[in-house]
Amino acid sequence: MEVNDPGSLTPEQARALFRAGLRVPTAGWCAGRTQANLIAVPRDHAYDFLLFAHRNPKPCPVIDVTEPGETTAALFSGDLRTDLPGYVVYEDGVPVAEVTDATAYWRDDLVAFLIGCSFTFEGALIEAGVPVRHIEQGGNVPMYRTGRACRPAGGLAGPLVVSMRPIPAGLVADAVRITARYPAVHGGPVHVGDPAELGIADLDAPDFGDPVEVRPGEVPVFWACGVTPQAAVTASRPAFAIGHAPGHMAITDARDSDYLVP
Amino acid sequence: MEVNDPGSLTPEQARALFRAGLRVPTAGWCAGRTQANLIAVPRDHAYDFLLFAHRNPKPCPVIDVTEPGETTAALFSGDLRTDLPGYVVYEDGVPVAEVTDATAYWRDDLVAFLIGCSFTFEGALIEAGVPVRHIEQGGNVPMYRTGRACRPAGGLAGPLVVSMRPIPAGLVADAVRITARYPAVHGGPVHVGDPAELGIADLDAPDFGDPVEVRPGEVPVFWACGVTPQAAVTASRPAFAIGHAPGHMAITDARDSDYLVP
Repeated sequence: MEVNDPGSLTPEQARALFRAGLRVPTAGWCAGRTQANLIAVPRDHAYDFLLFAHRNPKPCPVIDVTEPGETTAALFSGDLRTDLPGYVVYEDGVPVAEVTDATAYWRDDLVAFLIGCSFTFEGALIEAGVPVRHIEQGGNVPMYRTGRACRPAGGLAGPLVVSMRPIPAGLVADAVRITARYPAVHGGPVHVGDPAELGIADLDAPDFGDPVEVRPGEVPVFWACGVTPQAAVTASRPAFAIGHAPGHMAITDARDSDYLVP
Repeated sequence: MEVNDPGSLTPEQARALFRAGLRVPTAGWCAGRTQANLIAVPRDHAYDFLLFAHRNPKPCPVIDVTEPGETTAALFSGDLRTDLPGYVVYEDGVPVAEVTDATAYWRDDLVAFLIGCSFTFEGALIEAGVPVRHIEQGGNVPMYRTGRACRPAGGLAGPLVVSMRPIPAGLVADAVRITARYPAVHGGPVHVGDPAELGIADLDAPDFGDPVEVRPGEVPVFWACGVTPQAAVTASRPAFAIGHAPGHMAITDARDSDYLVP
């Protein structure tokens, strides 16, 4: 299935494609509509996840929380079990399935957290003339587990995950200024430059997503990433969780402009 | 016990006085140090309270959360059971005790939430020449249950509680601008002017705290208040909770400037 001009689709149209089985990263899709990370956990674990998010607001800005068992959210009128392009199912912290339809794994006691995604500010970057390489390349953003630990909460601990965009040195300040105006979708970068300082050995070998070209004169810039709760699942091994496939986001009904602060 | 110049005390000195039994509203105490609301609930209810706070960030900006059973917090090196000037103990939503020492009521499964308090920005108001009437009068700030409902969470629902400061009409814009820079301690006002619109029948009969004089040419300005979780306790009747006595705050180790955004 090929999709022409995914940026022009409505969230409803995109969700229908994903519900039909299309599996594709969503960067650049549904221009102006906010994308979100998903982490769904049993109600018994919900407090730990919400507290973990509260203690780590940069990687885990919660923008919506469902009631236990709900399959839609205030910001997402689709079906959370089917309308994302990809899911990862975890048992005891181990990925046991990667699926495009999570219905068979969904449970009545699941609480779903929607967490802001940095794809939200990419439109504003492009509009300001700041290149977004993974969109140019038509791939997924590269994401990396760092050596930096999140603040633990209850039984949850794990590393900060970051996304990376190579930015021309003369535009780094613009990229910082623009993204800092979107604090609910990770805001400004957590790190500019030296990947080694973050514990990233090889930019060409991301832990999630696709590698992108870093051209001469460009600096790797790192933003906190909403895959961080899934890294905590892997590290802390709660009994059960469902996450989105990294880069394959929930496209919400909200508008990017809702998350822009003055 | 009389305290000269409470604004010059350190948090440690203030807590020692409260631990010794002094019961007094804390507006104006320990200049530059952040004050906080307390709501402590059994671990079983903690998710509902944290989600309620997340869904109602204006009245309930959580600045710290203890592990179950802890009696100090990262931001509060004193003893949460004794070092506030007053406590209210609730059983099934009914206040069953007002005490200056909550030790006899504290439980091993309690999680304590510290919630930002608008006393934090009063120093900045005074510095800018905006009068703070309850400090001038040496009393407690007036607080009101409004007719505005908070977003519920799990078993918790209740009205928005607000604090009120009368502001000269020509300084209202300054008061808005200054307080909006402290979003973690309620930020800008939720309402300026007409109390009836908020469902407040009589400014001279606050639900908590002391009435203050509104002078000719002054406008009542209302800020979201961290007593809101206690109003939810009263309305929703969870089995057990301990709150601070309204206006009788936890004086933390944090500095007001920590909560100032650029």
